[in-house]
Amino acid sequence: MTKIVFIVSTLILSFMMTACNCDNNGSKGRKQDAMENIFARKSVRKYLPKPVEQEKTELLLKAGMAAPTGKNTQPWEFVVVTDRAVLDSMAAALPYAKMLKEAPMAIVVCGDVTKSSYWYIDCSAAAENILLAAEALGLGAVWTATYPYEDRMEIAKKYTGHPDHIASLCVIPVGYPAVPHTPKDKWDASKVHTGKW
Amino acid sequence: MTKIVFIVSTLILSFMMTACNCDNNGSKGRKQDAMENIFARKSVRKYLPKPVEQEKTELLLKAGMAAPTGKNTQPWEFVVVTDRAVLDSMAAALPYAKMLKEAPMAIVVCGDVTKSSYWYIDCSAAAENILLAAEALGLGAVWTATYPYEDRMEIAKKYTGHPDHIASLCVIPVGYPAVPHTPKDKWDASKVHTGKW
Repeated sequence: MTKIVFIVSTLILSFMMTACNCDNNGSKGRKQDAMENIFARKSVRKYLPKPVEQEKTELLLKAGMAAPTGKNTQPWEFVVVTDRAVLDSMAAALPYAKMLKEAPMAIVVCGDVTKSSYWYIDCSAAAENILLAAEALGLGAVWTATYPYEDRMEIAKKYTGHPDHIASLCVIPVGYPAVPHTPKDKWDASKVHTGKW
Repeated sequence: MTKIVFIVSTLILSFMMTACNCDNNGSKGRKQDAMENIFARKSVRKYLPKPVEQEKTELLLKAGMAAPTGKNTQPWEFVVVTDRAVLDSMAAALPYAKMLKEAPMAIVVCGDVTKSSYWYIDCSAAAENILLAAEALGLGAVWTATYPYEDRMEIAKKYTGHPDHIASLCVIPVGYPAVPHTPKDKWDASKVHTGKW
């Protein structure tokens, strides 16, 4: 009887583990609750010298392209930079992106200005999706703005080589966090206006 | 013996349901994987005549305020509209927000223009967080732009009564989806540029 109970228990456990996707550690199987993930996202500026897997890079880009866009124009374009020399040069040239010096890669989020006059709005939603996906995949990332700063946008253009009809919104360094980072609690009830202001 | 097997099975099932948070239906216990949630988000324009719980509304707003902002200025402000007459008036006045007529509530995402000259970027990240949180909570929502359209921003100002130093980015109707909606697959590998453009 004990044997039967054991077998039944094992079968149920196996079934439940599969059905619930409870593996929180594997790179593929990692599961992070969507709401918790939104609250856990933080700006990560210190990275391990470990490359970001191609599979995860693609998931970050897929997350970016899952954002909504006005009139479904999808004006976004993404440049993935992993060249050490280019990352170092951008770190030196961009005033608030020094952490690129440590990052194994960066995603430059761009928009096609001929496709949308408010490309930077659509691309902001895409950039936020990338940051959330990084958190979900056990990576760390941070939004370093190029838009609306002409000088920074020129620097991004120089190092990505994007054409004239493309503009960059931000450079997102991505890597495995080197140290623990804590999300900020920014909840402020005074910023909620119910009914009328 | 059968009884013992049944009891053991039930106990294990109960334990696993709790441990895995597999309850996808309860308002509190619902768990949605973060990556799946990003890919499952879609624009929902048809709603049931069922109010959005106060608890969920607060979670949506908390998600919004969990977004990153440049220099941590947090320039956002949110107006929660549930008044039927106001929602109907906005539906009539705004050209692409007719679904407000059905929605039990809307969140107007605003920014304080004195706090940031690029408030609309920060608020876009907040708006995307709200859309993702709606998906995670079993709700449906859609981004209807007011910025950068002066006329629509004026309409939002009229119905929310926000002061002059505040500007609205978008009106997000929220409700329980009345019909199934399918997310768009927008993945386009040609928009990824590896290394240099």
